[in-house]
Parts: sequence; structure tokens; C-alpha cells
Amino acid sequence: MFTRVCPLPASVRYVRSFSISTTRSAKAIIYTRNGEPTDVLTVRTLPALAVPRGDQVKLRFKLSPVNPADLNVIQGAYPAKPHPRDDLGTAEPAFVAGNEGLAIVEDVGEDVSVVQKGDWVIFSTPQFGTWVSEAIARQSDIIRVPRASNSSLSEVQAATLTVNPPTALALLTQFASLEPGEFVIQNGANSSVGQAVIQIAHRHGLKTINLVRDREGIEDLKGQLKSLGADYVMTYNELGEKTARETVRDWTDSKPIRLGLNCVGGKDTTLMARFLGQDAHLVSYGAMSKAPLSLPTSLFIFKNLTCHGYWQSRWYQQHSAEERQSLIAEIVGMMESGLLQEPSHEIVVLQGSDEEMQSTVKDAIGTSASGRHKKILFHFADI
Amino acid sequence: MFTRVCPLPASVRYVRSFSISTTRSAKAIIYTRNGEPTDVLTVRTLPALAVPRGDQVKLRFKLSPVNPADLNVIQGAYPAKPHPRDDLGTAEPAFVAGNEGLAIVEDVGEDVSVVQKGDWVIFSTPQFGTWVSEAIARQSDIIRVPRASNSSLSEVQAATLTVNPPTALALLTQFASLEPGEFVIQNGANSSVGQAVIQIAHRHGLKTINLVRDREGIEDLKGQLKSLGADYVMTYNELGEKTARETVRDWTDSKPIRLGLNCVGGKDTTLMARFLGQDAHLVSYGAMSKAPLSLPTSLFIFKNLTCHGYWQSRWYQQHSAEERQSLIAEIVGMMESGLLQEPSHEIVVLQGSDEEMQSTVKDAIGTSASGRHKKILFHFADI
Repeated sequence: MFTRVCPLPASVRYVRSFSISTTRSAKAIIYTRNGEPTDVLTVRTLPALAVPRGDQVKLRFKLSPVNPADLNVIQGAYPAKPHPRDDLGTAEPAFVAGNEGLAIVEDVGEDVSVVQKGDWVIFSTPQFGTWVSEAIARQSDIIRVPRASNSSLSEVQAATLTVNPPTALALLTQFASLEPGEFVIQNGANSSVGQAVIQIAHRHGLKTINLVRDREGIEDLKGQLKSLGADYVMTYNELGEKTARETVRDWTDSKPIRLGLNCVGGKDTTLMARFLGQDAHLVSYGAMSKAPLSLPTSLFIFKNLTCHGYWQSRWYQQHSAEERQSLIAEIVGMMESGLLQEPSHEIVVLQGSDEEMQSTVKDAIGTSASGRHKKILFHFADI
Repeated sequence: MFTRVCPLPASVRYVRSFSISTTRSAKAIIYTRNGEPTDVLTVRTLPALAVPRGDQVKLRFKLSPVNPADLNVIQGAYPAKPHPRDDLGTAEPAFVAGNEGLAIVEDVGEDVSVVQKGDWVIFSTPQFGTWVSEAIARQSDIIRVPRASNSSLSEVQAATLTVNPPTALALLTQFASLEPGEFVIQNGANSSVGQAVIQIAHRHGLKTINLVRDREGIEDLKGQLKSLGADYVMTYNELGEKTARETVRDWTDSKPIRLGLNCVGGKDTTLMARFLGQDAHLVSYGAMSKAPLSLPTSLFIFKNLTCHGYWQSRWYQQHSAEERQSLIAEIVGMMESGLLQEPSHEIVVLQGSDEEMQSTVKDAIGTSASGRHKKILFHFADI
């Protein structure tokens, strides 16, 4: 019995880990040229991963979210691009899709100090290529998820914490200095960022006016956003009605709205901007309509409107590892304290043959691109 | 002979001044309803002005500039509106046109301390109604023009110093922190503000790329702007050519352009914005095309563009009398030192009957609105 409780020597643990990684097939969602994701994505079984050496870390992925920007990257319509890879067993260099993900450390090289086996990690290197079941990373690519003991943090929360919640926090704090009781107006309010904005604003005592597209089940959606803390929800159509100005004036008690958040662009945003007050800031972080932002010059000159953009990737580029770690700790704290709930989501399990997985991926992405508001996360079934 | 060189006693001087003001006919360019300036403006002989009392000042106007915004005020398409007046001898309340002007103090009330007879003054109260030959103002409406002894300041410079040169100075200093050698790109570069931007930028070691409409005599205009210190001048058509990006890259040596100035709006401004570099600021102070400012959202998100507006009237509203006086002194200093030349201009002398004056006014305004680039200033001939 003595031998069974004695810890295995390091070499044995190492062999065991190596043996798992070679018998399990690693999968990746890849593309070799830009195009519509449903056209160009394929699922591929990867060559066996090497044993991590030096500062390398071997990761097994738990969840790989699909963000709208991921699709733009695949289309080639995004300034950040993944590195071409020649270790995927493809005839030509290929790209692994995905920017965000949650993985578990399975093994570490001898120089790795920031994580250990079993840690949850997320990615600080943009466009790491997270739509995979396993990967070798360098420790500089990852951030350990700092979970409290008995943490309530869910896998979905951890997988989606690097992009949307920090964006929402920055939108609410970096542009206008708002006092409790002041109003924020946002479009695309049911996006993941929008949902985080509602929750963070609510906890800071800010009031939100949330704009969404009219749709089947709009009343359910309104209820859902209100349950997150939304003060008011209206459709773009309702905002365009003659009575809207009076309605909004009633809600705000004629206080000027000094912060507008935009992930849509186009004429609905022009309309929203007209509801902003003197000295307001309009911050764009997305362009779902693909139409430009078109504003009367008078808003800038006479109402002193300022228009900004926000891109979380730039923040990560411009800040140190310590600052990134500290931001992540702040977001995790918000999640553990119940301030930030999971985004509404659907986990899509990938299993079966490569062809079956590929078909599941394309179906899921087709649904995601059609503007359904649930965030999709891929999970590779253990194979 | 003694009596002829002896100064007149004060009371006699007073009577003399009074006698002039009652025998000379004061004229004003007025309107009673908003509309096209050429439709709604009339010239009117005013009732005799009262003798100034208390903090009142009696003014005789030297020059009354026509700014594009003056026409927008008359059209009713401008947020600042003049006060309706019931002292003009009209059946219904009327408005005197004009925001900017140079006047000479002819007489002062007993409580006036900031100016004395013979001083040149300009106006700190927006929409004072400066298109008149004479007026009674309060001392808080005016700023004394602080001329050095033997000042080279011309009447045209003094008449045009409250709006355009301070706007140019603010555009260059309040939004982007530029180092000598950096580039500014501006449209409407032959506007009065544009001309001031060229001169101030040149003296600060900044390089300017100046955009103008194609027109007859374009080479003359290019030469004229270059003589003010413009580094490069090109038309919107030239900017739209395929080779433009390479041309601009040659000029800037691939340095990012971090400041764009816009008084036009519309598609020419969208085009200009595409030439701005990372972290640039685009400041709008006019909208001559009347088309909105339409920009791809990607410029905000990925290039971190910030869009602002600037309105000199707001600056005056938000700053104290001392700050306003200090700004004016700075601009006068720039003019006296030769840094800022007179804008290219034409003085339109108003004389003859009210009908003749009215016809001259409308002709001049028709020319001004048609986009000719000389600033027009009205001067009422001594009557």
C-alpha cells in the first residue's frame, strides 16, 4: 500500500502527461486564406504536440468564445492578424482562428514560473489562435486567472473576461467623468459588452438607456436586460418616433446625457447622437451595421461633442504584464462578487469526425453572424 | 489768434460731440424675420441715439466684417441669436446683423472706466449687432484694442481679430500636442481661419498640407497661400487621385499626421480623415458643404481617432473679462509683430440712400455666399 500513496517521481508524472498528449488527438479550427468563415474554416487533427520546454506551457482548452471580431479577422477585415503557422501539418502556412479562450495548464517547461499544472489561464497575446483543443504557449502569452479559494467564477465567465468586461469598464470610466444619477445611452445593448455596461453602470449608480433592434421576442429581451439592471430599453424604431424626445426627457428629468456608447454605426447612431447633451462623449467600439458614423458637424461645434474609439487590444499592447494582471484581477473580483453575470451564451460541443466538427462549427458561426444575441463558445469534447 | 489754439472747455467738446451725433444719420442693416440674407435684410436710418449715461459708451463703427456664421444667424440656422430690439423705429421687434466689428469710442457715460474717447474697441458680447454706423454699448460689451504706441495694427486686422485668429490659435494648440516638424492637414485652407492657421503653424515650425476647391486661378491661390507660409497646397480632386497617398507620404516622410482641421464636412472630409495617422485629432469648426461628417468607425477604433468641435463663442462665454482681454492682447501682438497678416479682403463702402446701401449690401453678401475667398467688410461712409 505504501507505494500507492507515495507521490510519483517527476519523471513518471512527465511520462504520464506525455502519454496522454500523444494518445489524445488535438484538433484545431483553421483557415489558409481570408474569406467568409463558413467558406474557409476547416477542422483539422494536429500533429502530436511536443513536450513543453523552457518557458513553454502545454494547455488544454476548456472553452473558446466566438466574438464578432473573430469573424472579421477571418474575413481579413481586421487590423490584427494571427501569425501564419507551419506546424499544423498543412501544405501551406495556415492560421488558427480565435482570440479569446480558457485553458488549463497540463504541463510546464523547466523555466516556467507564473503558472503551474491545473491553473486556469487566459490569453494576453492577441490572436493567439484559441479555437483549438490543445496548444503549446509561452508563459508570456498567458495570464493566470486569479481565482479566490472557493471561487464562484464559472468557466464561461473566465473564458469571456479578457475582451468584453474590460471594454465595458473602460467605456464607462475613461471618457466622461460621470456622477451617480447621470445617464448613459448605448446601442447594441444586448451585445456582451452592452450587457456588461448595464451591470457595471447599475452598480456605479449610473442610469442606462439601452437601444436594441426590434425583433421577435423583444419584450423578453427587454425583460432580460432589465433583470441585469437596465433602467430603460427601447428599440431604434421607438427612438425614431416623434414622442421619443419627450419620453427620454421624462426619463432623464431633462438632465443632459453625457456619454453615448456605439457598436453599430449608421443612421441609428446618428439618431442616438441627437439625444446626447452638451459636452457629451460618444465612444465607438464596434460597427455591426458596417455603415460609417455620420454626424452633423453642428453637434461637434455647438454641442461640443467629442467622438472617440476604444479597442481593448490596444490597451493590452500599451500596458505592462503587471497592469494586465491587475485588470484581470479586477474583473474576476467583479464576477466573483456577483456584479458581473455570465453573458447569455450557448456552449457548442465539437465531437465526432473532423467533418462532423466542421459542420457544427459552420452552423454555429452562421447563427452567430445572423445577429442572434447569445454568445457562442466552442468546447472540444474529450476525444 | 489765441482763441483758435486754446483747447475747448470740456462742456464745449461735449456739446460738439452731441451735435455731431444728432445731425449725422445712424444706419443699420437689420431684419425682422429669419431667411436668406439677400431676401430679409434691409438698411434703415435709426432714430437719433441718446447721450451715453452710466456705463454706456457711444460708438462709431469703422468696419463690420461679414463672417459665414453671420449669414447662418440671419438664416436662423445658428444656435446663437441676437436679442430682438425695439429701439430701431420698426413696427415689430427687429435684429441688427453682425457679430464682429471695429468701432471708435465717441463718448462715454460717467461710470465708464475701461475705455475713453478715441479708443478702438471690439466686441465680447456675441451677436452685438455690429452692422451699424453707430451704437450705444455697455462697457461690458466691448474690449479695448490694446495697441502699442506707433502700432502697425491696421483697421482690417483689428476688425477681424475676435473670431478667426483666436480660432486658428486654439485649433493648433488645444487638441494635439505637436512638436516642430509635425504636420497639420486642413480643408477650406483659404478661409480666414485657414489663412491664420497657415501663418501661426509656420511660425511654430509646424508643416501644413492645405486643401482647397479646384477653381479658376487655382495656381494664383496656391501661390498666395504659400506666400503666407503654406508648405503644401492641393485640391480635393488631387487628394482623391490614386497617387495622393504616395505624394503625401513623400511630403511627410511617412510621419503620421496627428491633427486635421475641418470647416467643410461631407465626402472631402471623409477623404482627408483617411490621411490622418494613429492617435490623430480631427477638429471641426465649420461646415461649409452643409453635409455631415461621415467617418468609418474603424478610424475611431483601430486608429484611435478623436473628433472634436471648436466654437470661439463658447470660449468667450466660458472665460473671464481678464482672460478675454489677455487673448486679444496676444492676437494683437501677433499682428503687430508681422506674424499674422490681414486676411485677403474687400472693403465695401455703403453710401447714398438707404435703398442704395441695401442694394450694395445684398450684392456683397451674394458674392460672399458664393464662396469667393475674400473677406468682405462693410464701412458706412460718413453721412
